[in-house]
Amino acid sequence: MTDERLARAALSRLVEPGDRLVHHLLVEHGPSATLDRVRRGHGKLARFAERVRRLDVDRDLATAAKVGARVVVPGDDEWPERLDDLPTPPWCLWVRGPADLGAVSRKSVAVVGSRVCTAYGEQLAADLAAGVAQRGWTVISGAAFGIDGAAHRGTLAVDGVTVAALASGIDRPYPSGHARLIERIAETGAVLSEVAPGSAPLRMRFLQRNRLIAAMSKGTVVVEADLRSGSLNTLGTAVDLGRPVGACPGPVTSMTSAGCHLKIRAGMATLVTRAAEVVDLVGELGADACDEPRGEERATDGLDPDEAKVHDGLPHRAWADLSEVCNVSALAPMQALAVLARLVELGLAERREGSWRKARSVVGQPVG
Amino acid sequence: MTDERLARAALSRLVEPGDRLVHHLLVEHGPSATLDRVRRGHGKLARFAERVRRLDVDRDLATAAKVGARVVVPGDDEWPERLDDLPTPPWCLWVRGPADLGAVSRKSVAVVGSRVCTAYGEQLAADLAAGVAQRGWTVISGAAFGIDGAAHRGTLAVDGVTVAALASGIDRPYPSGHARLIERIAETGAVLSEVAPGSAPLRMRFLQRNRLIAAMSKGTVVVEADLRSGSLNTLGTAVDLGRPVGACPGPVTSMTSAGCHLKIRAGMATLVTRAAEVVDLVGELGADACDEPRGEERATDGLDPDEAKVHDGLPHRAWADLSEVCNVSALAPMQALAVLARLVELGLAERREGSWRKARSVVGQPVG
Repeated sequence: MTDERLARAALSRLVEPGDRLVHHLLVEHGPSATLDRVRRGHGKLARFAERVRRLDVDRDLATAAKVGARVVVPGDDEWPERLDDLPTPPWCLWVRGPADLGAVSRKSVAVVGSRVCTAYGEQLAADLAAGVAQRGWTVISGAAFGIDGAAHRGTLAVDGVTVAALASGIDRPYPSGHARLIERIAETGAVLSEVAPGSAPLRMRFLQRNRLIAAMSKGTVVVEADLRSGSLNTLGTAVDLGRPVGACPGPVTSMTSAGCHLKIRAGMATLVTRAAEVVDLVGELGADACDEPRGEERATDGLDPDEAKVHDGLPHRAWADLSEVCNVSALAPMQALAVLARLVELGLAERREGSWRKARSVVGQPVG
Repeated sequence: MTDERLARAALSRLVEPGDRLVHHLLVEHGPSATLDRVRRGHGKLARFAERVRRLDVDRDLATAAKVGARVVVPGDDEWPERLDDLPTPPWCLWVRGPADLGAVSRKSVAVVGSRVCTAYGEQLAADLAAGVAQRGWTVISGAAFGIDGAAHRGTLAVDGVTVAALASGIDRPYPSGHARLIERIAETGAVLSEVAPGSAPLRMRFLQRNRLIAAMSKGTVVVEADLRSGSLNTLGTAVDLGRPVGACPGPVTSMTSAGCHLKIRAGMATLVTRAAEVVDLVGELGADACDEPRGEERATDGLDPDEAKVHDGLPHRAWADLSEVCNVSALAPMQALAVLARLVELGLAERREGSWRKARSVVGQPVG
């Protein structure tokens, strides 16, 4: 392993994701020199002393090897380029799974949401994830309970590619109740973490992990989110990075949709209801555009205004003579006769001895 | 009654709402001369011949009088000025009820939606209507089954003012199943129609009635609408007139919310979830603005980043010594000690013999 790669692996043990000072050192001096400085611990870097004292990169690499994880760094083919859009990209990624992270994340959607979600949200997350996966998109999420888990499962159910970003070390599946799910993701897709093996799932790391999900994906969709949901941070990062962002509506009475509604109202997220709309949102203009949903067609849809007026005014049961038709439709007799003939031809009206009525088969409902 | 008023009443019998030719004559020549021309029936005006033959304004006025309806025309104090924004304002309005239409419609919201709605939509319509009514706004709707009826009822339930615009004649409550509801609206608010007494509720009249609701209101909210709902026409008219438009979200699985979702997606409607947001939407900037909904507050909300980091890393049950705290938080010992002291003071951490842990009372959940 190169020194640079080792240095980045060490930094992922020493320095929390998002540290601006260390990021600037890294940009300025490169990984090895930055690691040296952190180790020497001058000035503000003194706060890493305890971590430096405990540092053991070989042990971390061995732990990673035990779970089949590799270290991916900037410059690797597999490095997801979009991560470089972040103000503070990860020092490195610890990655498990057969997927080429760079390749699969290129066409990817983050599907995220609250841990505490409704059955509606869970079903919707699974459906959206399956739908975008079937359209060739990778589904990225956080492996959390609730929406995240449903998104991963929905993807796996259609043999799609899914990527889980963990807030804990790559060897510490969290939540432990999702250990089996995370294992399944690692078998076909990828599981990743930007903190060293063994790291605990601290609160601050969830926020950093969320920024990773938003940055790595082409766009982000929040399925259900209460007002305090971390998924709204994911959404915020995606907005900051100029990525397309969608959110799903739900009942206004559901607190787990309140976060989504808030962001749609604020114009930060586009309302999305189905996979085609998600792909329309994150995909290429035109190529991935979806059709507008359309209501049921009616037999009277193609009528011109006069035809519609006459048909509209014909009785259902009784028969109307020409003067009645003229009265209701406000057409002159010759016009009305011509229109009536067309309606009979179209099967929309019946004629009997100089009187007309609506054809029986056509259900005409008021528009109100 | 003046000739002009009589002429307009006659026109409401002869000419369908929205007729552009007659509207232009009216603007050019005034009501009496326009009525004369329609009566003479030259050229395109010949199509009204059958209606002219049957015209009997005295009978219409007598019918109206029987149900206590009056004729309101442009220029009357009671004429709702906003109607003049329409490309083709009504010829006149037939109005029942004690409310001064001009006064009550000034601060009004249209609350409309599908006839076939869900229990969710019905409840929401009633809640929104009651909420805006309690804030001093008039609720205008179409007295139809479903959302319209719920909006009227919700308003009446809080003794608010509500206005029903009918597609049929003022003496023909439609739907007949809402005859009692329409009666109740007429007792405290107003019921109106722009077609002559006795007129049938034809399909085209629903579309015209919908434009009336949109034009008369300061803004329009669609609560539930399937993709073919006439309430989407109401919304379209409101958009065309530059009025604020809102739509309520619902489950993506509900076809009766599909129309609302479509319009929110298209940027034609603002997503609204509660009465305060409706008033924010239609009211005056600032004066009627509503607060953003906020999630539950947490004990740790006010912490600075270092405090949050240390608190986050403290164990719940076991005790951590200073080196452990420094390791987890990446703070230097002196910094960590100061932060720990503050956390103890705030009641967020406990100390025992040079070790610390989270205080028992504080629930700290990961953000994921």
